[in-house]
Amino acid sequence: MRLIVFSDYALRMLMYAGGCNRLFTIEEVATAYGVSRTHMMKVANVLTRTGYLKAVRGRSGGLVLAKPLGKINLRELVEATEPDFALVECFGCNNRCPITRSCKLQSALAEALDAFTSALSRYTLADLALAPAEVRRLNRH
Amino acid sequence: MRLIVFSDYALRMLMYAGGCNRLFTIEEVATAYGVSRTHMMKVANVLTRTGYLKAVRGRSGGLVLAKPLGKINLRELVEATEPDFALVECFGCNNRCPITRSCKLQSALAEALDAFTSALSRYTLADLALAPAEVRRLNRH
Repeated sequence: MRLIVFSDYALRMLMYAGGCNRLFTIEEVATAYGVSRTHMMKVANVLTRTGYLKAVRGRSGGLVLAKPLGKINLRELVEATEPDFALVECFGCNNRCPITRSCKLQSALAEALDAFTSALSRYTLADLALAPAEVRRLNRH
Repeated sequence: MRLIVFSDYALRMLMYAGGCNRLFTIEEVATAYGVSRTHMMKVANVLTRTGYLKAVRGRSGGLVLAKPLGKINLRELVEATEPDFALVECFGCNNRCPITRSCKLQSALAEALDAFTSALSRYTLADLALAPAEVRRLNRH
């Protein structure tokens, strides 16, 4: 059971943004984490489109958080970046499992998933953002 | 976030086994669920190797649960069938994320994962097994 890499990178980008008291670029985040610039560009596009980041245009432009740290909830963020939480076939939209109506596994898995997302909902980016000193350390390497 | 199809099928096979008061074949489970026989054969091999099912050889042979229903815990089963729970890079064995030492996301995700698996641990196959009438219904189609 994994989150997709896209969610991992989105979380890292926002944690970076949260420790960065200035505009930042996709390039610098990709370099800081040692990950693909192309991947990070896709992540930045989605985070901008979904209202987590704001893009400032122009020569000295860049990205900045679009909301206060405390308003970026971990559960909502992961729900925005994961394509689904279809743990098993009947949680998705192409369900053909013939025991769906009487199945007791569904509610057990739904309960576990709810416990997972409830735990996430107790965190915001205020708890997770990198310290400004950590952002500076990443930029030195 | 998904479980792998292998886990889904392993759960279904054991739920079937739990409602079946006799030896059963891979063929009949695959037909009952309308899924690939090849997939179900792999599932049966792993479930036999890991002590969930017992294979009885011979002409009138087949498979049967190797443990009492109440001894098959949902958490242990999912842990046996999932390759990992590497939600993000640093949960896996190829971690190269440079913020690992100071990262606060790890513990938030670990807490959520723990809530997930703890919820699963409250169920055994005794709660999830198909009713014998449901197994008979599946076999009629």
